[in-house]
Formats: sequence, C-alpha cells, structure tokens
Amino acid sequence: SIDGSQLWSDLMETAGFGATARGGLHRLALGADDLKVREWFAGTCRALGCEVIHDSMGNQFARRPGTQPGLKPIMIGSHLDTQPTGGRFDGILGVLGGIAVLRALENGKVQTRHPIEIVNWTNEEGARFTPPMLASGVFAGVFTEGYARSRADRDDITLGDALAQGGQAGAQPCGQHPAAAYFELHIEQGPVLEAEAKTIGVVQGIQGMRWYEVRVMGRDSHAGTTPMTMRADAMWAAARMIDAVHGVAMSHKDGLGTVGIVDCQPASSNVIPGNVMFTVDLRNPSDTVLEAMEQDFRARIAALAEDCGVEAIVSPVWNSAAVHFDPTCVACVREAAAEERYSMRDIVSGAGHDAAYMAQVAPTAMVFVPCLNGISHNEAESAEPTDVTAGANVLLHAVLLADTR
Amino acid sequence: SIDGSQLWSDLMETAGFGATARGGLHRLALGADDLKVREWFAGTCRALGCEVIHDSMGNQFARRPGTQPGLKPIMIGSHLDTQPTGGRFDGILGVLGGIAVLRALENGKVQTRHPIEIVNWTNEEGARFTPPMLASGVFAGVFTEGYARSRADRDDITLGDALAQGGQAGAQPCGQHPAAAYFELHIEQGPVLEAEAKTIGVVQGIQGMRWYEVRVMGRDSHAGTTPMTMRADAMWAAARMIDAVHGVAMSHKDGLGTVGIVDCQPASSNVIPGNVMFTVDLRNPSDTVLEAMEQDFRARIAALAEDCGVEAIVSPVWNSAAVHFDPTCVACVREAAAEERYSMRDIVSGAGHDAAYMAQVAPTAMVFVPCLNGISHNEAESAEPTDVTAGANVLLHAVLLADTR
Ligand SMILES: NC(=O)NCCC(=O)O
Ligand SMILES: NC(=O)NCCC(=O)O
Repeated sequence: SIDGSQLWSDLMETAGFGATARGGLHRLALGADDLKVREWFAGTCRALGCEVIHDSMGNQFARRPGTQPGLKPIMIGSHLDTQPTGGRFDGILGVLGGIAVLRALENGKVQTRHPIEIVNWTNEEGARFTPPMLASGVFAGVFTEGYARSRADRDDITLGDALAQGGQAGAQPCGQHPAAAYFELHIEQGPVLEAEAKTIGVVQGIQGMRWYEVRVMGRDSHAGTTPMTMRADAMWAAARMIDAVHGVAMSHKDGLGTVGIVDCQPASSNVIPGNVMFTVDLRNPSDTVLEAMEQDFRARIAALAEDCGVEAIVSPVWNSAAVHFDPTCVACVREAAAEERYSMRDIVSGAGHDAAYMAQVAPTAMVFVPCLNGISHNEAESAEPTDVTAGANVLLHAVLLADTR
Repeated sequence: SIDGSQLWSDLMETAGFGATARGGLHRLALGADDLKVREWFAGTCRALGCEVIHDSMGNQFARRPGTQPGLKPIMIGSHLDTQPTGGRFDGILGVLGGIAVLRALENGKVQTRHPIEIVNWTNEEGARFTPPMLASGVFAGVFTEGYARSRADRDDITLGDALAQGGQAGAQPCGQHPAAAYFELHIEQGPVLEAEAKTIGVVQGIQGMRWYEVRVMGRDSHAGTTPMTMRADAMWAAARMIDAVHGVAMSHKDGLGTVGIVDCQPASSNVIPGNVMFTVDLRNPSDTVLEAMEQDFRARIAALAEDCGVEAIVSPVWNSAAVHFDPTCVACVREAAAEERYSMRDIVSGAGHDAAYMAQVAPTAMVFVPCLNGISHNEAESAEPTDVTAGANVLLHAVLLADTR
C-alpha cells in the first residue's frame, strides 16, 4: 500500500519549484519552474526504474513494464503546471499520487499485466495558454497539434516556441500512444466532500464548460468634458455585461458564470475607455442547459451593447461538452474505496481535467479527495495528509483492479 | 497679429514627437518623446530671443523682457505631455499659441511693460503620474514638491527619478517665480462651442473634480467548482460598483462619473478574481453637488460590497475644487474677442487645466476654441486652423490688454 509520508514529502519538495510568499505556487506551463519540476519528475521516475519520454507536445510519460506482451498501458496522470496564484495540490497530487503508486508496486515487488504509465500533461490549467487541457486534448485528437502550438501567451510567445525553448518537444508524435485505461486522482476543488465528511469522491463525469472572449468597442473621450448622454463608454457597458454573466448563471439551474480577465484601454483615469476585453467561463452539468445559458448570455450582451451605445463581439474560445466516465473504471474506483473502507460518495466534477479528453480515447475514471473549505485556484488551497494518502491508495487499488479486467 | 500658418506648421511639426499610427500622440510626461518636444520648445523660444529656464519640477519658462523694471511677468502656458492615446491639440495649442504670441510681438516689434513668459508645465495630464496638473500644483503651493516627486508611474519610476534621468530638474526652486497674470489657450475638449457655432469660449472657471481609487477584496477561487452562493467575486462586485458610478453621475444635476482604469487579479479565465482596483473620476461645476455625489458614491460602494460579500476601500487620490477666474483677466479675453469680431460665449471648463492652480496665485483666465465633435483624449482629436488662429489672436490681444492694466 501507499507510503503516505513519502507522498507528502514529495508534495512539499516539489512545492519548492515556484513557491509564492503566501504558501502557494506560481508555476505557469513551460515557465522556468515548470521546467524544473519536469526534470524532478523525470529523475524521480527513472530512479524508480521507469523509462521516461516526452511526446511532441511535451507530455511526459514514465513507463513501468507489464508482464503480458502486447497489452496497452494503464495510464495514471494529471499535471504539474499551476495557476498564477495557484495551490500545491491541484494537478500535482494526481502526478505525485501516480509516483506513489509506482513506489508501492516497486516496494511490494508487484508485477502488473499491463505496463503502468505515469503522465504529466502539458498546460492543463489554461492559464498561460488557453484553452485548458490543451496537450491532453491533442493526445485525444480533440485539437490539432498545429492549433495547440499556435496558442500564444500574453507576451505573444506561442506554445510551440515555449516547447522548443524549454527543450520539451519530444520525437514521438503526440497521440500515437494508446492506453488501456486512464485514472486521475485530484482534489475535489469544491466543498461537497468536506461538507459531508466523505474521504473519497467516486467521480461520475465532468460538467460542460464554454469559454468566450467579449470585445466591447466604444469611443475614447474626455472624462471631464463629455456629457453622460454623449458617451460610448466601453467600461460602463462591460461592467453591466459582467453583471449579466452573473445573472445568467443565477437564472439557470446549476449554472456557473465567471469573468476572470478584464482588459480596459487606454487605461487612464480621465479617459472614458474606448476598448474593453473580458473573458467569460460558463458551466453546467447539462449540455442542454449550457446551450440555453449561451443563448441567454448572447442575448443579454447584445441588448446591453445597444443600450449603452457600444459594439460588442462575442467570440467562442473553448467548448468542452459534459463527460460521462466509463462504468467499468468507475466501478474499479468504487470497489477500491470499499476494499479500503473509506467513506465515499458519487460526485460530478465542476472543474475540467485531462481525464475529460482521455475519456474520449480510453476507459477513464477519477478519484477525488476533499480540500480545505473547497478552495482551489488559490494560494491557500490545502488538503489533509490522511485524505491525500487515502486518495493514492484508492488510485493504486483501482489500477490493480483494472489490471485484472 | 498671429501668423496662423506658422502656428499650424508648429503644431504639425511637434506632432512628430510621439506620433501614433492613428494620427494621435503618445507622449507621456518626461518620456523620450516629451524630452524631444521640450528640446524643441527651448530651441524655438531661444531663437525668438528668449531666455529659457527649467525650474526644479521641470517646468520650462521662456522669457521675453518687458520695458518697465520690477514688473512681474505675464505668463502664457499649458502643457506638451499627452494621454497614452491622446490628440495633437490638448495642451499643445496653449504652449504653441504662446510661441505664436511671442512671434507676433517680435515681428511687430511690440514692446510690453511686463516681461512675457511662455510656460510648458510638467505632467499636466495625470496619465503617467497622478494626479493631473502636478507641477503647476507645486508652483501654486497646492502640492509639496516632496509629494509630487514621490508620485510613481506604473513601472514604479517616481516623478523625481524621471526628472533626474531626463535632466529636466532645474536649479530654480519651483514656485519662486511670481506672475502678474496667467492666460491659457485650449481646445474646449467638449461639444458646446461647435454645437453653437461659436469661435471663442470666454472661460469663467473650471468645475470641481475628485479622484478615488477603489480596492475590492474578495477571494480567489475556482470558476468551475465554487457555487455561485459561496463566491466572494471581486470582479462581479466591481462591475456593479462601476455601474453605480454611472448611476451617481446620472442622478446629480450636471454630474459626471468615469471609471478609466480597471485592474483585475489574478487575471486567469478560470479563477474568480480575488482583487480588483479601479479608478473613479467624479466632477461637478458645484462643489456642494460634488460633495453630495461623493457621499452617494461612498454609500453605494459600501452597500454593494456588503451585498456581494466582499470588502471595498475607497481612497481619495485628488480633489480639485471648482475654480472662478479673475474678472479682470476674463474681461481682457472678452474684449480681445470683441475687438477681433469673433463670435463667442461664456463657458465653464469641464477639464482641469494648469490655469486652475495658477488661479490661486495670479489673476487668471482662459480662452477656448472649438474642437471636432467635442472629442478629446482621443487620437482623433481635431481642430480647424481658422479656430486655432482665432484663439491665438485672442490670447495675444488679451495679453496686450492685461499689460496695460
Ligand atoms: N482542474 C482544474 O482546475 N483544471 C482547470 C480547467 C478548469 O478550468 O476547470
Ligand atoms: N485638459 C485636460 O485634459 N487636462 C487633464 C486633467 C483633467 O482630467 O481634466
């Protein structure tokens, strides 16, 4: 079984790569600290006897051989990149939990029929390069590699350039690498397990999510001389639209709506802004309701643009439909949790995960553990060592169950 | 009288320092292009026989001697710095109009009793260093020089550093330099003169203006997992507050309210923003109404912070009370316009000007000319050559009238 204290010490050790003053992490995909933690990942997995390769999207695969020739690997993965002000568990637990599984197999001298591969997916967060889950998306054939490589960060560095500069683009084309099954361990990132005092979330699937960019175009003019009725104030219009995003979320069952980035130009106190860009993230467990939310959102933006005398363009950036995991893999997770006598409940993920795309090309499931106050994408993100160990234990036993099926 | 074509060619020549692709100017105070136009100013005025000095705040004074010993100078001034996406007339016309007056005096071999000084005030716009009119404010004793020098731009360069780096801090302490009168020519920056087809605005004074910074503090959290009811979304709260600023302006007679800068952090599409800062500019011709606007604004911010479950701190940044110009100087402007048979009307300035602070230490008045569609703080800012010439003519004759009184 899992060596919980070794797993915890791995979590704390890698939290040194990109540590922030407030106890969180700033480790954007393919930045200097991400390169360091990738090196740590490769070194640690090699020391455990694995062969480690990068594919052309920089995804790292650490492979432990199986006993039965010709079987595809069972993959365990997540990501080591973080949000700009992210926590020490989001994604990281899934990769280091995979390493903990490797260690348990090595220490217990356990042979598996399938090879086991631990995967570190590139740019899951979507914080440096949008959209999220970009490299697992290429792996699953959801995005072309050309599209993914052309995505640029705010300094106009493309993902392709960042891969090349960091020496992370491997020879093996991304995706030519099938999996027998895929398992991902993650903190819940929400409040449900903690509120109900459950140790394990048996994840049924992932809600639908859509991203947009809204550009609002008014007219720069003087804050002191332009009568209120003669303004085309892009920021006032954007403010009402941002409030409307909240309104859309509130008026559809289980809807979520978030504006995370706002860029207001020309950014001078005494200039009425002529140009504003903001991002919109809409989510719903039901694709039907999510579509209704999009229609409602578009209608409200159009009405507000007209009312404020500005132009607004809504551009879709990303659309990830609701995902339903593989019943056999989900059953492996449930049985593993039951074997180990952890309290559990079924749960749907509010966050996107690499598992969403892997589910399109392999039987997939996820394991959730609680996190403090349900807080994530925050430097204060935290999880209990006992829950972390429990999650990795369920991951280990789910993989062993899947190996027999 | 004024050589209008020379004035126009000066305007077009200096528009080469910091020209933007869209025909405007980007010439932030003490930036590279501002240093170039300052050199142009000094060279041009020296060629017209003036002595040119910088004071310790970088204000440039070009002095043409008078005939009567012991008389203080009549000053003509404005500024050569611009907004980030500014026009070719705002401020510039006032300085180059002063040079046009110098030229007319030289060409006509006119002697004045008082010395005439053309002034280029440092950092009028408040775009690089807040607040506006910073150096004329120090000249007038409204701000201490220590306060002004400590103001920092967005790269944390202080005004003091920028003065030193640009070699613009002269030996003469700012303010030890009294004026007999102060005149400033400016485009109206608003729509009134154009709408009424008047050539000259006889400026009665300047409305009151107050600036604030609002900091909104919520909690960073995950856009996909945080229920709408458990959020502390600083951007949603800020959006409602920005709409409320508009509401405050609309519900007070002659009120204006503008949010020009919005900084939303941590600025990731799938992170509910935990920190937002925005600027607020409130204006009213009546200080009493402006005070009521501030109270209304503060009450609305507090109520919305509570309603959205965030904290908000309102910090005053600048407060410039309504200004009433000197009746004698205003009469000089009116008489000059009448002499030259220009159509005119009385007007109150919506924008702040260096004249607002000069009015505290010298008899002061201003001359306005129309600008295209009333647009300013915009690269499309424009004015007619005939109006520009008319304004400089009124400036010349107003100064000559003041010289006799
Ligand atoms: N797990 C996670 O936070 N992924 C980022 C993608 C999302 O926004 O849900
Ligand atoms: N004239 C002018 O645009 N000055 C800037 C100060 C203000 O915001 O009114």
